[in-house]
Amino acid sequence: MDAPPNLTPHFHDEMAHLKARLLVMAGAAEEQVRDAMRALVDRDHAMAERVLTGDEAINQLHIEIDERCFQLLALHQPVATDLRVVVSAVKINSDLERVGDFAINIGEATLRYLEHPSVKPLVDIPRMADIAQGMLRDALDAYVRQDTVLAQNVLDRDDSLDGLKDQVFRDLLGFMCSNKMTQPALDLLLISRHLERIGDHATNIAEEAIFIVSGLDIRHHGREGGAPTV
Amino acid sequence: MDAPPNLTPHFHDEMAHLKARLLVMAGAAEEQVRDAMRALVDRDHAMAERVLTGDEAINQLHIEIDERCFQLLALHQPVATDLRVVVSAVKINSDLERVGDFAINIGEATLRYLEHPSVKPLVDIPRMADIAQGMLRDALDAYVRQDTVLAQNVLDRDDSLDGLKDQVFRDLLGFMCSNKMTQPALDLLLISRHLERIGDHATNIAEEAIFIVSGLDIRHHGREGGAPTV
Repeated sequence: MDAPPNLTPHFHDEMAHLKARLLVMAGAAEEQVRDAMRALVDRDHAMAERVLTGDEAINQLHIEIDERCFQLLALHQPVATDLRVVVSAVKINSDLERVGDFAINIGEATLRYLEHPSVKPLVDIPRMADIAQGMLRDALDAYVRQDTVLAQNVLDRDDSLDGLKDQVFRDLLGFMCSNKMTQPALDLLLISRHLERIGDHATNIAEEAIFIVSGLDIRHHGREGGAPTV
Repeated sequence: MDAPPNLTPHFHDEMAHLKARLLVMAGAAEEQVRDAMRALVDRDHAMAERVLTGDEAINQLHIEIDERCFQLLALHQPVATDLRVVVSAVKINSDLERVGDFAINIGEATLRYLEHPSVKPLVDIPRMADIAQGMLRDALDAYVRQDTVLAQNVLDRDDSLDGLKDQVFRDLLGFMCSNKMTQPALDLLLISRHLERIGDHATNIAEEAIFIVSGLDIRHHGREGGAPTV
């Protein structure tokens, strides 16, 4: 008797390849975020410019992975956990593309920021970037390895990111009121907001990882309604 | 000979019901945005509070529609256009849930805003809300009716929304620098940004509508990289 279509070796290869491509895309998105932060911290105008045009690979991967998911669904008609993995890949693909967009937003805000003298030494924002990048990396690992403990760990870190962003906002609002450095302070506010949103996308990915394994939809349970406030 | 599983009347009923539920969700999201704007314009504290707790229906629909898509894929294994409609529904569902989140963000910023006297008469922000809500409505209609002309029309309107947001930012930055009304002006900036993001989600939905009909992936073609700047 033949194996059902979704259990062929070919199908498993395709599934492994889908996950591998998502990891490549996550790596590309993470690199864009890292470069954007380096441009900000090192005041490196040329690097910020490179970030602005550096999303071509991510955009190509976005289309390729979407098509790959579509083909997998059409040709192999996966069920149960395999189906969840593919549907989650569609969503994670969107999340990663948004992360790439936020990296560009950070690059754009950085270019404006570099037109002015420094508002203040940058401490909390690079910390936010470290947290967001770590969350992203671990969320992808959790999805690929179906590791719910790691996924839950990503969710737990989102609070520290939100807390840092609130702190950055309070600090910079003070600067805006007292020093008249409105535009550069606003750009830092925006950057911290973009970083926090990257953490939100990592959180989405981690929730997908948990959903695949447990079938338990943890979204909208025990979390405040709405995206973060500011 | 039996019809293939994905052509049974039952399947068509399920597909029609899926679209109907997405329209209900879009209506609920739009209502939250409308109430949040009314709270801002009318300085209605109680209404802003209601928006903050008014996302329960949207969250329930988010989970229900996701599950509905999953069941459709698992039980009926749709192909071709039907498969695209279901995969798009997964994405549109996420977009609508984000719109609901932004309505809450607007409600939160409104509550802070109402603690201060008015910064200025609100003209451009209500206009932005009208445009964003119209885009959202039409994007859903374009998806449900597979109307690519209407979908393209939604994409075209996104530029006017972006332009208005840039104008609001310029105006309010002036206020922040000259009048020291930093916090309320910042809250209006955030609200205009949320509205512009709602337009982005409407744009995503319109792109899905075009993709279903044409199979042509118009994302990442002829558009500036990255989400809007500020």
